[in-house]
Amino acid sequence: MNPIYNFSAGPAGLPKAVMAVAQKEFINWNCMGRSVMEISHRSKEFIEVAQCAERNLRELLNVPDNYKVLFCQGGARAQFAALPMNLLGKSSKACYVDGGYWAHSAIEEARKYCTVQVIDAKTTVDGKAATTAASTWQIDEDAAYVHYCPNETIDGIEINDLPVTDKPIVADMSSTILSRQIDVSKFGVIYAGAQKNVGPAGITLVIVRDDLLDLATDALPSTLSYKLLDAKDSMYNTPPTYAWYLSGLVFKWLKSIGGVVEIEKRNRNKAAALYQAIDELPFYKNDVHVDNRSLMNVPFQLAKPELDGLFLQQAEEKGLVALKGHRAVGGMRASIYNAMPEEGVAALVQFMHDFAEQHSDS
Amino acid sequence: MNPIYNFSAGPAGLPKAVMAVAQKEFINWNCMGRSVMEISHRSKEFIEVAQCAERNLRELLNVPDNYKVLFCQGGARAQFAALPMNLLGKSSKACYVDGGYWAHSAIEEARKYCTVQVIDAKTTVDGKAATTAASTWQIDEDAAYVHYCPNETIDGIEINDLPVTDKPIVADMSSTILSRQIDVSKFGVIYAGAQKNVGPAGITLVIVRDDLLDLATDALPSTLSYKLLDAKDSMYNTPPTYAWYLSGLVFKWLKSIGGVVEIEKRNRNKAAALYQAIDELPFYKNDVHVDNRSLMNVPFQLAKPELDGLFLQQAEEKGLVALKGHRAVGGMRASIYNAMPEEGVAALVQFMHDFAEQHSDS
Repeated sequence: MNPIYNFSAGPAGLPKAVMAVAQKEFINWNCMGRSVMEISHRSKEFIEVAQCAERNLRELLNVPDNYKVLFCQGGARAQFAALPMNLLGKSSKACYVDGGYWAHSAIEEARKYCTVQVIDAKTTVDGKAATTAASTWQIDEDAAYVHYCPNETIDGIEINDLPVTDKPIVADMSSTILSRQIDVSKFGVIYAGAQKNVGPAGITLVIVRDDLLDLATDALPSTLSYKLLDAKDSMYNTPPTYAWYLSGLVFKWLKSIGGVVEIEKRNRNKAAALYQAIDELPFYKNDVHVDNRSLMNVPFQLAKPELDGLFLQQAEEKGLVALKGHRAVGGMRASIYNAMPEEGVAALVQFMHDFAEQHSDS
Repeated sequence: MNPIYNFSAGPAGLPKAVMAVAQKEFINWNCMGRSVMEISHRSKEFIEVAQCAERNLRELLNVPDNYKVLFCQGGARAQFAALPMNLLGKSSKACYVDGGYWAHSAIEEARKYCTVQVIDAKTTVDGKAATTAASTWQIDEDAAYVHYCPNETIDGIEINDLPVTDKPIVADMSSTILSRQIDVSKFGVIYAGAQKNVGPAGITLVIVRDDLLDLATDALPSTLSYKLLDAKDSMYNTPPTYAWYLSGLVFKWLKSIGGVVEIEKRNRNKAAALYQAIDELPFYKNDVHVDNRSLMNVPFQLAKPELDGLFLQQAEEKGLVALKGHRAVGGMRASIYNAMPEEGVAALVQFMHDFAEQHSDS
C-alpha cells in the first residue's frame, strides 16, 4: 500500500511522528494509567503540558515578553467577534483589508460591533488574481486597529506585505502560523485556528500585545475576553485539553526538526516544486499572480475539467488524498501545511506528470 | 497492577471500551489511512459521524422532533453568555435559581445582558446543605426564561424538582446529562459541557426547542447563535471534530449497554453504595441533606482531616485516583459519572472500610 499523503485544507493532516506518540500513550499517558484527556486541567500534570506548549510556541515564534499567548475555544470565527469587542476601546471604527473569503467573513462579523472601513485589496495583474500594494491602503485615522488575513485558503492568495500604519495590526494567521518566520512585534494580535498548522480542530491561538488587554467592552462574553483568559492562564473554564496536548506535541516536533527556520525552508521547497510542475505542464494552470501565490494552499485546474473526477480517483489510488478544490473554485487544491512532507509533494508532482502525459492531446 | 478507577470531576474518565476503539483506529480510521481528526468536517465520512452522533443522542434522550441538537464550542461558560443573548427577545429580565457555584456563575454572566431575578434556593435542613422546594420559587412575570443547574458538582447538591412555570426552563446539565432519564419536553434549553458524561473537553451540547430560535439579539457573536448553528448543522465553522467523534463513540457505547435506563440503574447503585459506606462508617461524613445528595459527585470528609493526604496516597496506590475534593470544600470528592463502573465504586467502598478500620480510635 502506498503511504497516504493528506492534502486536506483543514482539518489537516498532523505530523506522523506526533500521531504515533499520541496513539502509543492514548490510554496510558505519563504512566498514569489513563489518557491525558481524562485528567483535570488543574492537575499539576496537565498544567505542565499547558505551560510547556506555551513555552515552545514562544520559542518557535520568538514571541516577545510583552505579548500574551492564549489558548481559546471557538475557532477563528469566534475571534471575528472577539476582536472588535476586545479592541475597539472608545473607537467605533476598525479598518479591514479585504483580500478574499476569510477576510470578508471577518468584516461581516465586525459590522455587528462597529463601523468597518473596508479596503478592497483584490485586483488582477496580467489576468491573474492579485492584491494591491499595502503602501496604497489609506487607513482611516479613527480606526482602532487594522485587520487582514495574510493567506486566503480558498483562492490560494497571499498578501506578503504588512499594512503601513501605526495602529495595531491584527492578523488571521489560521493557515500560515508556524509555516514561516514572522516578526511578532509588528502585530497587535495574531490569531489562528489550530486545524491547519497547529493541531486538531477545537483550539485557537491568540497572541496579543499586553497593552491591548484593557480595551474590552462590558458586554463581552467572558469566554472571549483576552484579559480574563490571560489572568486565568487560558483556564477560565475547562479548556480543550486534548487539543492543547496535541498542539504541544506538534510544537515539540517542530522544534525537533529545526524549528520555523527549517520548516519554512521545506515549505518553500514544497511550494516551488508544485508551482513548477503547474507552470511547466500545459495540462495544469493556477490563476494566482506569482507574487501572491500561497505557500500553503495551491489551487490548480486541469486543462480538461471533465477529467477532474478521474484525476481525483487515480490520485487517491496512489495515496494522494483530499485534493478536491473548494466548491467555490472547483478544480484541485493541494494544501501543503507543515505536516506535509516533501516526499508527499514529490509524489503529487510525479502523479501530475504521469496524468498529464496520459491525457494531453499532443 | 490494580486497574485504575478515575474519580475525576472533569475532565472525567471515558468508558474504557470507547478509549480502546479510539486508540485502535487513531491513525487509520474507517480504513482511510489517517485519523478522523485529519479529515474535512465537510467530507461525507465526517458528516456521517456527526449525524450518527446526533441520531444516537436523540434516541438516548428521546429528544422530541421540535427540539434542535447543537454541537458547540466554548464550554458551558460560553453558554452562560449565549443564553441571554439568544433567549431574551424583547424582555430585559431572566430568572435564575441559585443553588450553588455553577448557578451563581451563570447569574454573574447573565447580568452583563439583562436584569436577573435571583431566587436563592440554598438552605439547610437538619444542619445539612439543602435546597428549597421549587413550589416556593416565585418567578417574575416578565422573566424571559428560568435558569437552574440541577447538579452542583463542587458541593454535591442536586435539585430534584423542576421550576414551576410556563416560561422556558433552561438547565445546565453539564454534570447530569445522560446519567438518568429526563423528559426533554419540559425544557426550553438543555446544555452541557461534554467533559463529564459525554466526551472530552472542548465540545458542548445544546438541545433547544425550535420556537426559541428566533429571539436572538443582533449583537450575538455568530458562533454562539443557536439559529445559525442549527441552520448550518453545527458546522457554521470548523467544529471540534475529534471531540464530536469521541462523543459519538460514547453514545454508541451507552446504547450498547442498554441506554439511559440501564446507566441510571447503575448510577443509582453506585451512589447508594457510596453513601451507604459514608453513613455506616462514623469515620466519614457527607454534609448534604439526603434529599439533595448528588448522584454524580459525592463529597465526603474524614473524621480526621489530618489524614486526608494519607487517604489520597493510599487510595492512589490502589488505583483509586482523583479523589481530592474541590479546594473550596476540602476533603474528598468521588465523581461517579457514567464511565465509572460499579466495580470502581465497590473498590472505593472497600478501601474506605479498610482505611477507617486502621485509623478509627475505637
